[in-house]
Amino acid sequence: MIRIAVDGMGGDYAPEPIVKGTLMALEKFDNIEITLFGDETKMAPYLKQHPRLQVIHTTHFLEMGEKDPIRAYRKNKELSMFMAMQHVKDGLSDAVVSAGPTQALVVGGHFIIRRMASMPRVAIAPIVPSLDGRGRILLDSGANVDFKPEHLLSFAIYASIVANKVLKREKPQVALINIGTEDSKGRDFDKETFALLEASKDINFYGNLEPKEILTSEADIFLSDGFTSNIVMKTMEGTAKGMGMILKREIKSSIFATIGALFMRKALKRFKKSLDASEIGGALLMGFDGIVIKAQGASQSYGFMNGIRQAKEMVDANVIQLVSEVLTKKEAVGE
Amino acid sequence: MIRIAVDGMGGDYAPEPIVKGTLMALEKFDNIEITLFGDETKMAPYLKQHPRLQVIHTTHFLEMGEKDPIRAYRKNKELSMFMAMQHVKDGLSDAVVSAGPTQALVVGGHFIIRRMASMPRVAIAPIVPSLDGRGRILLDSGANVDFKPEHLLSFAIYASIVANKVLKREKPQVALINIGTEDSKGRDFDKETFALLEASKDINFYGNLEPKEILTSEADIFLSDGFTSNIVMKTMEGTAKGMGMILKREIKSSIFATIGALFMRKALKRFKKSLDASEIGGALLMGFDGIVIKAQGASQSYGFMNGIRQAKEMVDANVIQLVSEVLTKKEAVGE
Repeated sequence: MIRIAVDGMGGDYAPEPIVKGTLMALEKFDNIEITLFGDETKMAPYLKQHPRLQVIHTTHFLEMGEKDPIRAYRKNKELSMFMAMQHVKDGLSDAVVSAGPTQALVVGGHFIIRRMASMPRVAIAPIVPSLDGRGRILLDSGANVDFKPEHLLSFAIYASIVANKVLKREKPQVALINIGTEDSKGRDFDKETFALLEASKDINFYGNLEPKEILTSEADIFLSDGFTSNIVMKTMEGTAKGMGMILKREIKSSIFATIGALFMRKALKRFKKSLDASEIGGALLMGFDGIVIKAQGASQSYGFMNGIRQAKEMVDANVIQLVSEVLTKKEAVGE
Repeated sequence: MIRIAVDGMGGDYAPEPIVKGTLMALEKFDNIEITLFGDETKMAPYLKQHPRLQVIHTTHFLEMGEKDPIRAYRKNKELSMFMAMQHVKDGLSDAVVSAGPTQALVVGGHFIIRRMASMPRVAIAPIVPSLDGRGRILLDSGANVDFKPEHLLSFAIYASIVANKVLKREKPQVALINIGTEDSKGRDFDKETFALLEASKDINFYGNLEPKEILTSEADIFLSDGFTSNIVMKTMEGTAKGMGMILKREIKSSIFATIGALFMRKALKRFKKSLDASEIGGALLMGFDGIVIKAQGASQSYGFMNGIRQAKEMVDANVIQLVSEVLTKKEAVGE
């Protein structure tokens, strides 16, 4: 049985979609049990009894706009997110899922769950949409701004194991995001990272990726420093949002277009869905000594259920132990 | 009369769309005269006599795939692009327009036209699409990787003058591309640039811009280091291209959707057009002592005509002299 701790109060619309997504996941997967942390009074309208569901009551939770999660953690350990993380630390759950603020999850990860000994840094890796619908792992989008090339290599190794074991890609390829495809492109940082990735035996290196191919590339994992990947993710989001608005405007602009859109209703729905991150799952927080999944802040129940599915699959595939083995071996041979 | 030098042989489909775009511009604007540089035999099928058109023959031109434009320049000054630039240097034309390789234009700018004394560096500034259809100036996307914050300020000043005088924006706003909107976001480089832009009296500073708003932001000018802006531009391109492919796939997926798309034909065409950079014009090369416009490599005649229009408007508004005055005054007061 895979044991998952869920922060019932995290996210823009909590607790409704969180509780509903939790019940949906329990229906769908019969090898999970869930401990839900949150305010029982607030969750009650959506809650149902379930043999594999346990609720732990706390009235405290983190505001979505919390700017100083470190202070919040120091002040109050009874916040639903941190209690769920403590459950993992105490060995009572195998993974934690929350739609709360990402930076608070990073803080809780560091202070409560702690970093894996073999991972020098922690990365936030969202799954971004792709033309083929399978999604791609993008990292690090955590806005870390002082990574070294070795950090990127360790993330690449972690993500490769996730892509192989969880996403079932035969030989996952790692691409370095860059301004050109030639080996010599980019800043010194990119050139050093290129050399390191190319020399590594623990990953399949694709080479440089120009983001002109961000939705069409064959590579499974897109890698760059925290600043650049964050910019890539937000530019994808902004372009998709803007294009959606333009399409909507054009549909409304004439009666013919409006009629056409009625005929195209299902196709337009699939179009929209293909770019919806919640179809694919949440972001992975890589580097902690436990599985931490950040579901989208605006998660609806289906999206949150997908976050739980992802956590389950990560635990199932024993990802953390596999990563630890590769990185420890790598250290031992002095790579 | 505004005098424009055109490289007849630059671009993926040259010379046909270049010659046609040139004739289109001459029809449209009666205050320009054009000197067209290129192979008369190759251009002949598309050429027409025009009282304001002069053709200067050369059989030499730069291949689009040229990787070493410096060497190409050293070997041969008779290449159509460099002859057009020499025409500007010799005071015989006021601006040059080419759809040839950007890096070759940068090389020719440095070696032939030379930099403005008051501009410490040169920037490539494409016009990127926007929801409102007016476009935005993005810079620098020239893949320069060692800019200082002061360089970005001088680009911001140049772009503000272009936005005001050419694009007719009342009080153009300059936004710094960043991973968050708060003042303190980003790398040290971004924080220093933020402080410098905020303190400047020569621009209207909008603050940080998260690229989630890249198509919807009110700001007129988007600024970052050469690496980041290049990544933003290519991510926009890749997302738009991928979304277009997904939409096409969905339209083809059912007979209803195909019928719907017929009704929506005009709306879909406008949708596509709204994201087409050639509607707006080429990239500006800022910092040379003459107007240099890089039309899109894949320019068709209409897109190339828009590049000529842009050059004409830049000359008309006396942009280089205005920029030079602001920057020189700024130096004089020791800012």
